[in-house]
Amino acid sequence: MDYPDVLAWRDGQIEALDQTALPHLVRSLRISTVDELVQAITSLAIRGAPVLGAAGALGVALAVRQGRREGWDGPRLAAEIERIAAARPTAVNLGREVAAVGALVDRGGATGDVEAAALAVLDATAVTSYQISERGAAYLLQECGEGPLRVHTHCNTGSLACLGWGTALGVIRALHAQGALSHVIVDETRPLLQGARLTCWELGQLGIEHQLACDGAAPFLISQGRADAVVVGADRIAANGDVANKIGTYSLALAARQAGIPFLVAAPESTLDRATPTGTAIPIEQRADEEVTAPAAPAGTRAVNLAFDVTPAELVTAVVTEDRVIRRGEWPGGQ
Amino acid sequence: MDYPDVLAWRDGQIEALDQTALPHLVRSLRISTVDELVQAITSLAIRGAPVLGAAGALGVALAVRQGRREGWDGPRLAAEIERIAAARPTAVNLGREVAAVGALVDRGGATGDVEAAALAVLDATAVTSYQISERGAAYLLQECGEGPLRVHTHCNTGSLACLGWGTALGVIRALHAQGALSHVIVDETRPLLQGARLTCWELGQLGIEHQLACDGAAPFLISQGRADAVVVGADRIAANGDVANKIGTYSLALAARQAGIPFLVAAPESTLDRATPTGTAIPIEQRADEEVTAPAAPAGTRAVNLAFDVTPAELVTAVVTEDRVIRRGEWPGGQ
Repeated sequence: MDYPDVLAWRDGQIEALDQTALPHLVRSLRISTVDELVQAITSLAIRGAPVLGAAGALGVALAVRQGRREGWDGPRLAAEIERIAAARPTAVNLGREVAAVGALVDRGGATGDVEAAALAVLDATAVTSYQISERGAAYLLQECGEGPLRVHTHCNTGSLACLGWGTALGVIRALHAQGALSHVIVDETRPLLQGARLTCWELGQLGIEHQLACDGAAPFLISQGRADAVVVGADRIAANGDVANKIGTYSLALAARQAGIPFLVAAPESTLDRATPTGTAIPIEQRADEEVTAPAAPAGTRAVNLAFDVTPAELVTAVVTEDRVIRRGEWPGGQ
Repeated sequence: MDYPDVLAWRDGQIEALDQTALPHLVRSLRISTVDELVQAITSLAIRGAPVLGAAGALGVALAVRQGRREGWDGPRLAAEIERIAAARPTAVNLGREVAAVGALVDRGGATGDVEAAALAVLDATAVTSYQISERGAAYLLQECGEGPLRVHTHCNTGSLACLGWGTALGVIRALHAQGALSHVIVDETRPLLQGARLTCWELGQLGIEHQLACDGAAPFLISQGRADAVVVGADRIAANGDVANKIGTYSLALAARQAGIPFLVAAPESTLDRATPTGTAIPIEQRADEEVTAPAAPAGTRAVNLAFDVTPAELVTAVVTEDRVIRRGEWPGGQ
C-alpha cells in the first residue's frame, strides 16, 4: 500500500497517520510532546491494540527527549510516562509496552538504548502480525476447507491497527494471498465507524472484494449462511480465555455459535493478560455520549457508550497468536 | 404529545408528519396524488407497519379522488392502487389494508363509502395499539415481577409508527403509566437511525427516561443484565411464528435467550400472515447501498443493506396482539 507509515520514529519525533481523517484525507501527525501523544491516543488518531503498544514504547522515548529539553526530574518523567500508559484503559498492549521500555528508563538506560528498545517493539509488532496472519489462515483452511472463504470481520485490525499485515485483517490478507478468499463482510462498527472508514479503505487499497454491513445486521447475515467464519482481533484476553474487543464483537460470537461456524480471535501473545483472571476484571472504557447521539438524536439525549465488550471463552472457537492456536477448552484458567 | 397528527385525512388529502425530518424539524406533508404517496412511503417519510396499513387505506381513497379528477378508467385506477400496495414489500399491513379498501372500489362503492372505510382503518389502528399496549404491559409484569422494569427496544414502534400509543413502545408507555417502568434502552437502529431520531424524540416528549445504544452494543448490554425484557414490533409474522422486523432484531432475540429474559413481540393481529408458512417465505426489502456507506466509507464501497431480518419463532418468548398472547410453542404452524 502506498501511503505514509502508520507509525514511525523520525528525528526524535513520532510520525503517525491520522486515523480520524481517513478515508477522505490521508495525512500524518508529527508528535513531539507527551501532551500531543496522549491527545492523539484519546482522540483515536492513533488506535488499534498492537499499534497502541508500539506507540506507547515510542512514547517513552519521546518523554525522555522532552524531559531532557525541559529539565524534568525523575518523578516528573515517571509521571509523564504513566500518563501515556493510562491514556486508554482496555487494550493491555499500551500499558505493557510502556512498562517494558519504561523499566529501561528506571534502570538509568541511555537515551539511545531507550530509543533502540522502542524501535525494537515497533519492528516486533510488524513481524508478529505476519506470523499471526499466516497461522490464522492455515487454521481457517483446516477448519473450513480450502475455500474460497467468505469471512466476516469487525472494526479495523489491519496495517492501520497492527503494522505489518494486521491481526484479523492479516488473516484475511493471507487467505487472499493464497487465492483462498472469496470476499469479506465488514461491520461498519459504530459509533466511530472504524470498519466503514478504515477497513473498507485498507481492503480497497489491497483490491480485496468486500461489502459493508450495519452492526445490527451482522448476526442475521451470519444466520443466513453468508459467512464461513468470523475473524476478529482483541484488546485484552483474560487468563481464562475471555476476550475484550471492540463493542459488537459479542453479538458476532453468539451468532457464529448459533450458525455453527468458527469464531476466531487473532491477536499477539502480548494481548494475553495472565494477571486478569476473567473478563469481568477487564476495565471497559466508557466514552462520551456524543459519539453515539450526534448528530441524529434530539439534543440532550443520554447514551450508554461502552467502547469494548467481553466475549466469554466458551463462545470463542480459537485464539491464534504468533506462536500457537489455543482452542476452546484449552485455557489454563478455566472452561 | 403536542405535535401535528402522524397521519390524517383532511379536505380529500392525506396529511402526514414527515418522519425523515424528525427530530430536528417537525413538519407535515400534504399529499394529494398517488405519486406523492408512493414517494413518501419509499423515502420513509411515512413508515411503521401499522401506519403503513392506515396510509394504504387512505391511499385508496386518494387514488379514487385523483382518478375522478383525471378521468382514469377502471384498469388505470386498479394499477395505481396496486402501486401503493407495492411501495414497500415486507410489512404485510400495507398490502392488506390496500386490498381491503380496494375491494370496496372493485365492488363499485361510492367515494364517500371508500373514504369512510379508510377512516375506519385509521381509527381501528389507534384503538388496536392501546389494546396491545395494555396487554403487553400486563404480560411483562406477570413474567418479570412488578418492576420497575428496564426495557430494551429497537427501531421506532410508538405513535409515529402505529398511531395511538404504539406497539412495543406502547407497551413501554403503558408500563410507565402504571409506574412500573424504570427506563428504556433504545437501539439507534442503523442505517436510518429510527431509534435515535424517532424513539428518543417520542420518549423525550413523554418524559420517559431513556438511554441510546449502538445496535452492536445491544446484545452485550443484555448479557450484562442491563434489561429485564426486550420488546420489539413486527412487520410480518409467518404462520409458524417467525417474525420479520427491522434489521437488528434477530441479534436481540439471540441475546435475550442467552440472558434468560423475555423477548416479546408486540403487533396487531393484522401483522399475522397465515398465507406465509415460515419466515423464509417473507420478502425482505433490500435498500440502497448508500444508506449504509454514506458518508463515512470510501467512495464506491458496496454494502449489503437488508431492511429487515427474520427471527425464528423458537427465539420469541411471546407475541402479544390486541386479542391475545401467543407463547412460544403455541403456533399452529410449527415448532
